[in-house]
Amino acid sequence: MIDRLIEKIKQTDNPSVVGLDTNFDYLPDELRAGVADLRGAAQAIAEFNRNVIDNICDIVPAVKVQIAYYEMYGVEGMKTFAETLAYASKKGMYVMTDAKRNDIGATAECYAKAYLGKTFVNGASETAFDSDFLTVNGYLGSDGIVPFLKWMKECDKGIFVLVKTSNPSSGELQDMRLSDGKTVYEYMGQWVEAWGKNCRGKYGYSDVGAVVGATHPAQAEILRKQMPHTFFLIPGYGAQGGTARDLKVCFDADGMGGIVNSSRGILCAYRQEKYNGKSYSEAARLASIDMKNDLNQAIKG
Amino acid sequence: MIDRLIEKIKQTDNPSVVGLDTNFDYLPDELRAGVADLRGAAQAIAEFNRNVIDNICDIVPAVKVQIAYYEMYGVEGMKTFAETLAYASKKGMYVMTDAKRNDIGATAECYAKAYLGKTFVNGASETAFDSDFLTVNGYLGSDGIVPFLKWMKECDKGIFVLVKTSNPSSGELQDMRLSDGKTVYEYMGQWVEAWGKNCRGKYGYSDVGAVVGATHPAQAEILRKQMPHTFFLIPGYGAQGGTARDLKVCFDADGMGGIVNSSRGILCAYRQEKYNGKSYSEAARLASIDMKNDLNQAIKG
Repeated sequence: MIDRLIEKIKQTDNPSVVGLDTNFDYLPDELRAGVADLRGAAQAIAEFNRNVIDNICDIVPAVKVQIAYYEMYGVEGMKTFAETLAYASKKGMYVMTDAKRNDIGATAECYAKAYLGKTFVNGASETAFDSDFLTVNGYLGSDGIVPFLKWMKECDKGIFVLVKTSNPSSGELQDMRLSDGKTVYEYMGQWVEAWGKNCRGKYGYSDVGAVVGATHPAQAEILRKQMPHTFFLIPGYGAQGGTARDLKVCFDADGMGGIVNSSRGILCAYRQEKYNGKSYSEAARLASIDMKNDLNQAIKG
Repeated sequence: MIDRLIEKIKQTDNPSVVGLDTNFDYLPDELRAGVADLRGAAQAIAEFNRNVIDNICDIVPAVKVQIAYYEMYGVEGMKTFAETLAYASKKGMYVMTDAKRNDIGATAECYAKAYLGKTFVNGASETAFDSDFLTVNGYLGSDGIVPFLKWMKECDKGIFVLVKTSNPSSGELQDMRLSDGKTVYEYMGQWVEAWGKNCRGKYGYSDVGAVVGATHPAQAEILRKQMPHTFFLIPGYGAQGGTARDLKVCFDADGMGGIVNSSRGILCAYRQEKYNGKSYSEAARLASIDMKNDLNQAIKG
């Protein structure tokens, strides 16, 4: 799977992913007017997402759909979530579900089926929320990860395991030092390299990636060296404060090895002075192009 | 919130929670016959859950609904999930959503709204998947927990944070020793005590509980001593191998301080020789009574 994503990044010359963390409040007035319930909100979000996807699908390789922003609208939100995944796929984009799922083995297997695999009912199978990649949390250890590896292999999919997250207090646990001197994030990074050992592709990266925040460049630099076979999903650019220069350290000598997420910076671009007079979907496209140029200049420049 | 759960445990004299991890394959033949898609499976699971709830609601204080088992059936599964929560609540049971959610602050807020709070749409508010308790994962640190604390307070709800999970490889990270000699699970336990400091109830326990597996009694004993204000949600009894004797250490001197989950042991009781000839819902009731007696004998005996 990771080979296909890397090829798409090369083809679009764009190491970025647009995060569809589509809060109803991000929508322009015309989409929000008259909406008074979860169902209406979910439908408006679906329309917003479709228009954004239409305007970026030829220049951005992937979308990352943050499932919390759909769960908060209930069953109707989940319908929009499923529709958004399917629509982005149909438009040729790779689809990452950002769900940070984690559980014991038998339950992790259910999550793996739901997002990466198939659910069987009396011998017939269907996909539930079919995604190319899923983010997962490794706090429970290997037996909570193995079911994902199994379904990834079966269905040619990938995962990104949380290693060093972008939020301010990520260090409370992740930066703690273990008795052997390693930090928790380095230790988790070792596990991620191990989990990915048997699914490396032709570019040297494995289908088991890592989430490494752009907001913590010192830690990211350490991880890039210690995790040579791990592709990074990099949140924290833009609204969270990470700059293109900060995240250069996440990339290898060839300028590969990572994909950078921006959500609010793209979805709410139409509210920025810079894109004044543009519709939300036009502004999303222009902001995506600006982001691509900003990243390429920092990474390759 | 925790006071109300404790009172319900006292009233029913039953420190247990039935886990509705309802895999379609757990259903008896008559419910599975003729079902060929996710929608049919989800509807059959809803019926199964209703009948189990009807048969245990007067003797068991709470259900724990494992959301992965619903996500795997897609949007229709989520509908069954929502219906199951609402049905159990209507029948007077407390409802725990076992979702192990975790994310950065802004996203954790969405999860908090989805499960414990309310979602606002143009000033009107609705609940999405209304639960009394939610399980969460603390790998991201405080700013991923604070939004839950806020909505818990606002809506009188509770959370259980993963501290020492019941699965075999939980020790890979959780048992690692930090440079000061504490283990990761002890360190997480300290955070949980701190997060709960301002929401302690009249029995001394806070609305911020901890997940502590019955399968690791040595660690549970340490945690019980170090976390005097933290109520434990205890998985791992029964099918996962934890015995009532193992989990006695999770309780305080008064036999309080924890609630024990069993899922497969109750849902699939009808397949056990012991309950031969009983329907699945009768067997679930009998197995619940047997579990209650087994726990009370170990904890209080």
